[in-house]
Amino acid sequence: MELVKIKDLNKFFDKEVIIHGFIENIRNLQYVIFIILKDETGKIQVTIEKEDENNKDLVKLFDNLMTESTIKVKGKVLENSKVKLNGMEIIPNDIVVTSENKEELPFNYKDLNNVNIDTRLDYRYIDLRNEKNKLIIQIRSSLIRYLRDYLINKNFTEINTPKLIGAASESGSEVFEVKYFDRKAYLAQSPQFYKQMAMAAGFGSIFEVSSVFRAENSNTSRHATEFTSFDVETSYIDSYHDIMNLESEMIKYAFNKLDIEYKDKLKDIFNVEIKIPEDIPKLTLSEVYEKLEEKYNYKVDDSEKTDLTREAEKLLGKLALDLYKSDFIFVTDYPADKRAFYHMRDENNILLGYDLYFRGVEITTGAQREHRFEEVVKNAKEKNLEEDVKFYLEFFKHGCPPHGGFGLGIDRVIMILLNIDSVKEVQFLFRGPNRLTP
Amino acid sequence: MELVKIKDLNKFFDKEVIIHGFIENIRNLQYVIFIILKDETGKIQVTIEKEDENNKDLVKLFDNLMTESTIKVKGKVLENSKVKLNGMEIIPNDIVVTSENKEELPFNYKDLNNVNIDTRLDYRYIDLRNEKNKLIIQIRSSLIRYLRDYLINKNFTEINTPKLIGAASESGSEVFEVKYFDRKAYLAQSPQFYKQMAMAAGFGSIFEVSSVFRAENSNTSRHATEFTSFDVETSYIDSYHDIMNLESEMIKYAFNKLDIEYKDKLKDIFNVEIKIPEDIPKLTLSEVYEKLEEKYNYKVDDSEKTDLTREAEKLLGKLALDLYKSDFIFVTDYPADKRAFYHMRDENNILLGYDLYFRGVEITTGAQREHRFEEVVKNAKEKNLEEDVKFYLEFFKHGCPPHGGFGLGIDRVIMILLNIDSVKEVQFLFRGPNRLTP
Repeated sequence: MELVKIKDLNKFFDKEVIIHGFIENIRNLQYVIFIILKDETGKIQVTIEKEDENNKDLVKLFDNLMTESTIKVKGKVLENSKVKLNGMEIIPNDIVVTSENKEELPFNYKDLNNVNIDTRLDYRYIDLRNEKNKLIIQIRSSLIRYLRDYLINKNFTEINTPKLIGAASESGSEVFEVKYFDRKAYLAQSPQFYKQMAMAAGFGSIFEVSSVFRAENSNTSRHATEFTSFDVETSYIDSYHDIMNLESEMIKYAFNKLDIEYKDKLKDIFNVEIKIPEDIPKLTLSEVYEKLEEKYNYKVDDSEKTDLTREAEKLLGKLALDLYKSDFIFVTDYPADKRAFYHMRDENNILLGYDLYFRGVEITTGAQREHRFEEVVKNAKEKNLEEDVKFYLEFFKHGCPPHGGFGLGIDRVIMILLNIDSVKEVQFLFRGPNRLTP
Repeated sequence: MELVKIKDLNKFFDKEVIIHGFIENIRNLQYVIFIILKDETGKIQVTIEKEDENNKDLVKLFDNLMTESTIKVKGKVLENSKVKLNGMEIIPNDIVVTSENKEELPFNYKDLNNVNIDTRLDYRYIDLRNEKNKLIIQIRSSLIRYLRDYLINKNFTEINTPKLIGAASESGSEVFEVKYFDRKAYLAQSPQFYKQMAMAAGFGSIFEVSSVFRAENSNTSRHATEFTSFDVETSYIDSYHDIMNLESEMIKYAFNKLDIEYKDKLKDIFNVEIKIPEDIPKLTLSEVYEKLEEKYNYKVDDSEKTDLTREAEKLLGKLALDLYKSDFIFVTDYPADKRAFYHMRDENNILLGYDLYFRGVEITTGAQREHRFEEVVKNAKEKNLEEDVKFYLEFFKHGCPPHGGFGLGIDRVIMILLNIDSVKEVQFLFRGPNRLTP
């Protein structure tokens, strides 16, 4: 007899099944024992009539058994409208205790309001027994899956680039140093250069989902030293608008799938609703400031209009909802000066790229890359990076098609999507300056 | 007009299309220019009649243009049985040079026989323009995809566990040290402990595809300091046979899909054929030695029969093919002594686990894990690991279902599958003790 997952029990009414899971609750009454059993898919009531002679051994099992132990139950699935939980129950004829919890838990994971986040992380294997916390990780898994599916359907190749790198590239600061035999290595902050190497090698379109590392000594709710990056790069584009359109379609696909899979839970447990219009709106930076002034009387000095202020970002979330009924909005036409040297810019030094905002939080910087050898060398020189990125500049020497791409921080996207306050709650195991365990 | 990939051109006969790719070859003859253009999906001939007045500008483009430059071509797709390459050609009416190769390549990537592997890796962006090399990475991408698809269809949750860890766990040796602010961190050798943490947290079934790190100072064709690990763990099992069956089904699914997608290329380019029977055979360690003696007269001293000798491994590949027409074979019933403390063993100290061999090379160690708190503590004590793995032992304190799993080294599997001599050729960018660039 095969194991049945609890969510599928309604396909087995009046049949014998085996289920296996954690005991969430035991009510040992005078004539009956009610057990709530759960697996990763749901919960079910197991009912043992104590007066039934056949149940003598079963009843005995529960003399000392604590909740959080695991049991394997063989029994019949019955519809029972009197049972609040799903209107069904299992009447067992055999139960095996497969692991025993022998001590009180360090905290009650069902009510985490008064539990310190560090205690929760110390006992993350308990913390993740919480229904909402488990769901965060499950939704995260689904999000990555759907994003990836969209690209695979478009024939993108998945690559695995090294996280150990020879030089502290790109920004130089905030890079972890590794003792690498008799020399030093560093941990990659992003696969940016290697994604582009794939373009020079003729891969056409690639993506990677991987850990990236930032040695930032900041202990805020938004900082982590390691997080999951979803990186995309594609060749043969005509402009950065192709990249925006690709990301737009990918996000719409993934979020629509998430909405189908989790609609009720998103609403009931996280109190959120996903809003994506057919076309994710696009505004230039100056259009954003015009509209913020027009709609919310938000004014800011022209000198600050080279980027979005914190306040403008927040209002942008509102603007996107009010004007376009959209959680997402693209902002374009940033001055190129403050951006990475590898982004392409136009003759007026305007970035041929964009930022994507999700409910007022930036989740992506995307752009067409500078693929012309002379130009990218010039841009690197301007930032005094020529020597540091020498190996990267080589990629453009022997033909490299026009290309562009973007990176998406999965942790941040999940945080915003599920309205969670801290990145510590959306990672399976958080890593920060003061947190390397468990 | 949308960009068409070269493999799809046969759907556009007599129609106008845009294609975009690298110039593989130019034959500039008296009356005609033949260009071979390629993208990541295939190659096509572009034909320019030089005497046609309308082509004057096009002809001029090729006065100095070198191969490996990239061009975007607008033109008509014509069937032409005289053209050897696919029996078709493009007659262009517009061509734009999108990037120029201005120097000779450092080596001819079409014939790598006499090119040193280090030169190839130094210029990996050129090396990967080689058709076979590109295909290795594409097949690798597909393999990971199909393995993952199988598990996702079975409702496995994907997790992302940290690669930065607080203590040099598991084996202790061969771990990279990271300067982590004012203390030390280490790079994970495997997600083993965290996969099991997911079981204690009640996730049921999980997988992870990620970089893992080994500080082994070995410069062989089989060693890398960073590689891609495909890790699986699942709860509510009855025995390690459930794990073998899971891996068996997963591998059959993925390899059958690979066979469908790449059958001709596997044969023509790699000269390999995938052989997997309906049931992957299983032998105990002593059965293997019996059969090796019986079939090949291979004898070995009983004292050596606690594991497979190198020679026995090689013969095992032959045995699997001869007896079962199978590339794969499971070996079970190893003595538990030499195995990791977290594997479950029976009362005779036999491992409740297996090794999976692919053409005579071990690609997986899988097992049921010891989930009983007292037992796993005892096993850790036996190996003097109790202090080092204290955080891990905690996972079993408050109920943890019976579970097991396995890990698959993607690089190694691809190496064997495609009959490649060195791991340096199956990684997108190889990392070894002497190799941290590009």
